[in-house]
Amino acid sequence: MTPDTTPAELEQALTDAADAARPLAASEPAARAGWIRAVADALDAAADELVPIAMRESSLPEPRLRGEVARSSGQLRMFADVLEEGSLLEVVIDTADPQAKPVPRPDLRRVLVPLGPVLVFAASNFPFAFSVCGGDTASALAAGCPVIVKAHPGHPDLSVRTAEVMIEALRAAGAPDGTLGLIQGYDVGVTALKDPRITAAGFTGSVPAGKALHEIAVTRPEPIPFYGELGSLNPVFVTQAAVDARGNEIAGGYVGSFTLGVGQFCTKPGLLFLPAGHGLDDQLIEATSSVAEAKMLNDRIAEGFSSGLDRLRKVEGVRVLSDGGATLLGTTVTELLARRDEILEECFGPVSIVVEYSSVDELRAAVEAFEGNLTATLHAEEAADAELARELLPLLTARAGRVLWNGWPTGVAVSWAQHHGGPFPSTVGSIHTSVGVTAARRFQRPVAYQDTPDLVLPAVLRDANPAGISRRVNGTVTTGEVSR
Amino acid sequence: MTPDTTPAELEQALTDAADAARPLAASEPAARAGWIRAVADALDAAADELVPIAMRESSLPEPRLRGEVARSSGQLRMFADVLEEGSLLEVVIDTADPQAKPVPRPDLRRVLVPLGPVLVFAASNFPFAFSVCGGDTASALAAGCPVIVKAHPGHPDLSVRTAEVMIEALRAAGAPDGTLGLIQGYDVGVTALKDPRITAAGFTGSVPAGKALHEIAVTRPEPIPFYGELGSLNPVFVTQAAVDARGNEIAGGYVGSFTLGVGQFCTKPGLLFLPAGHGLDDQLIEATSSVAEAKMLNDRIAEGFSSGLDRLRKVEGVRVLSDGGATLLGTTVTELLARRDEILEECFGPVSIVVEYSSVDELRAAVEAFEGNLTATLHAEEAADAELARELLPLLTARAGRVLWNGWPTGVAVSWAQHHGGPFPSTVGSIHTSVGVTAARRFQRPVAYQDTPDLVLPAVLRDANPAGISRRVNGTVTTGEVSR
Repeated sequence: MTPDTTPAELEQALTDAADAARPLAASEPAARAGWIRAVADALDAAADELVPIAMRESSLPEPRLRGEVARSSGQLRMFADVLEEGSLLEVVIDTADPQAKPVPRPDLRRVLVPLGPVLVFAASNFPFAFSVCGGDTASALAAGCPVIVKAHPGHPDLSVRTAEVMIEALRAAGAPDGTLGLIQGYDVGVTALKDPRITAAGFTGSVPAGKALHEIAVTRPEPIPFYGELGSLNPVFVTQAAVDARGNEIAGGYVGSFTLGVGQFCTKPGLLFLPAGHGLDDQLIEATSSVAEAKMLNDRIAEGFSSGLDRLRKVEGVRVLSDGGATLLGTTVTELLARRDEILEECFGPVSIVVEYSSVDELRAAVEAFEGNLTATLHAEEAADAELARELLPLLTARAGRVLWNGWPTGVAVSWAQHHGGPFPSTVGSIHTSVGVTAARRFQRPVAYQDTPDLVLPAVLRDANPAGISRRVNGTVTTGEVSR
Repeated sequence: MTPDTTPAELEQALTDAADAARPLAASEPAARAGWIRAVADALDAAADELVPIAMRESSLPEPRLRGEVARSSGQLRMFADVLEEGSLLEVVIDTADPQAKPVPRPDLRRVLVPLGPVLVFAASNFPFAFSVCGGDTASALAAGCPVIVKAHPGHPDLSVRTAEVMIEALRAAGAPDGTLGLIQGYDVGVTALKDPRITAAGFTGSVPAGKALHEIAVTRPEPIPFYGELGSLNPVFVTQAAVDARGNEIAGGYVGSFTLGVGQFCTKPGLLFLPAGHGLDDQLIEATSSVAEAKMLNDRIAEGFSSGLDRLRKVEGVRVLSDGGATLLGTTVTELLARRDEILEECFGPVSIVVEYSSVDELRAAVEAFEGNLTATLHAEEAADAELARELLPLLTARAGRVLWNGWPTGVAVSWAQHHGGPFPSTVGSIHTSVGVTAARRFQRPVAYQDTPDLVLPAVLRDANPAGISRRVNGTVTTGEVSR
């Protein structure tokens, strides 16, 4: 077992991060973009060394882990691009208007500045993409915040080596010392979370841990934002028309999605709602029974899965359809509504529940039984189901951060439009995302400069717009210059 | 005294708000813009009736209150404009990219949707602009959230009448019933804040009340965002060159700003830092002593001011320069650093402290003595002080949400670029603003639709962009249509 970070080491990490905050805040966005690209390149270059460590510590297969490295380096490059393009800074300039009513308006120039040192609690299930080099770190670095990662105990060696690769790349590229740090140990993480030098925290993990850390962050003498991704059931609702048109395809896609990565995705579809008499039992059972047994991320998660599965099997009205490398359970909407809390408790691992509904009213009631989720999916036929879909989509929208049509929730594309977050309890802080460009916004606060001369303004706010970044000037987005 | 809202009335208000949430969320942005404009027009039309009530309840003068009505209706119209222009919805569309690496990218369309019913705790000091028809209400309505305002007890009749005018305007314009509600009573507000139907809260008021309500909001079984504006000292730093160039003007501007509205602005300059030997004592004292005595907002605030002033006068090293309708105190940076907590405690009302510094090192130390503030101001000369300003501005930026050059912090323009918020303790939630276009973001959460056909998408996300709103498509802002 990796020893916990000592108090002296933690103090050093916090001091280094605090010392790095000012030069990072003062750095030009283009310089920051360069540092972030250097990290991306270093990660790609180190993949041959890092992936085997990750395989040993997480039991995940090589192709998946190589994909994760590519996803992580790609994400870093996306943030670098958006820093250079400028939108990440959200510059808004309103030039003075002496004629404005009821009072003359001054020249105001708004830009997002970094909050300061950010503490990132890494996840177990994505040793790269939601860990040391993951989205929280990438978005905080892009924002200009030093980052201290609290390593997940499931992959300690990988965490240390990844941090070394990133720190060396940052140093070689000219980033301030202390831009990235790594700590180990749950209590050490809690101590760091309480430290006044930490200005925000990101977390991906379990509901109980997330709730406990959230409460610490928001009740500190100086409360800080805590962005936590806690848990999600990701229900999938299938219409009769969709079953008629492509039932087999849906059955196969579903089993593939809920067993992907040994069911250890935060976006695993936990329930599939099918019309009674769907006739897909054979396909579902066959696909599930052909899933090979695979080692889970670590012993603690395997034990949690085992006890969660035992619990679910014993719920009245829930029966086992298929068992083995993955488990498929079955129930009905009537049973679900009668024992909602028991059936709708997330079980992290390769299990999912097929729930039969006997009418559209029951389907609607099933949708409304859910609290907040990261995703909600509808499988429907555009022509036959348009009216039903128009009724259900707002209900899904009220309960999820991402709404999918005829797809599977596992797999979260990194792009401008992505949103990975949802109403409580799937996240604490549903107005924010941990994936996509706007993830950086979690670690930035706006500052408006009033009537400040060009000579002393940050370069991104000057009239001439020397870097040609995208800015909103008097209401219109432009890369041009401004005349006062 | 206005009686508190009864439990039955509160339950009705919460039910009405919850019922309004779904139709509001489903409303077209242009329809919402129309409802908001109707409220603005109704407020303007009712000014002759509302302003006298406000004068009686707040003791504020008529021109100031008429200005506030105009500011409030103008703010509502700004949100209506930005709803129609589209930026308020932050639509981002990334069309599918089957060639994307490491995996093909789906079509993703992101839009901000309303959180649900919002509870607004109104402020005492702006009976219109930060009360029933103020920025929190305007931004929440623009976001598509029903609003329940907890009236400030300082202007109960105005609150009731303003709400009636707004509710009637909303009804006549076709907005859902329950879009706006009003409740009275501190305990009633706390009960509402704990209710699961409330999804977010805005607050403007004192540090103790704000901290208490914040803790309730974030430790509920389902935590909700709490946006609180608590208190601010708004320091103003003046260089020697600025004194040399326009000392008299600075002295007059300062006294005008700290005594504006009987010193009852959250942006009142609480301290003015001048170089020792500035020679402005006579002007400062003369300007302060000519300020007429005026009634404060209410007895409780007057008593708080009186005891706060007594406390400040007794702090060692603080002397009285001028006393009367307004009070000017004096001290030095040495004294301030020795008794920081005593001197840097906000005293709401017509008092401010002139602090002398004896060197640039002391000036820098004074800046660094401050915690979070809404504003920080530098008076300097562009040519003579460029180097000093470039050094001080980042220090001010680290401590404030708005940085002013050669101006006065009272007066907060409503525009795209405005930011009204600052690091703790000036606000809880420093990444958000309560004034300006992005204030709506506090009450919106993103939803991304994946591979969803045009037929069932919200109109603002459809390929054809029927309303011609501003959207970011594949990274570029456009009002054009999209081809899949």
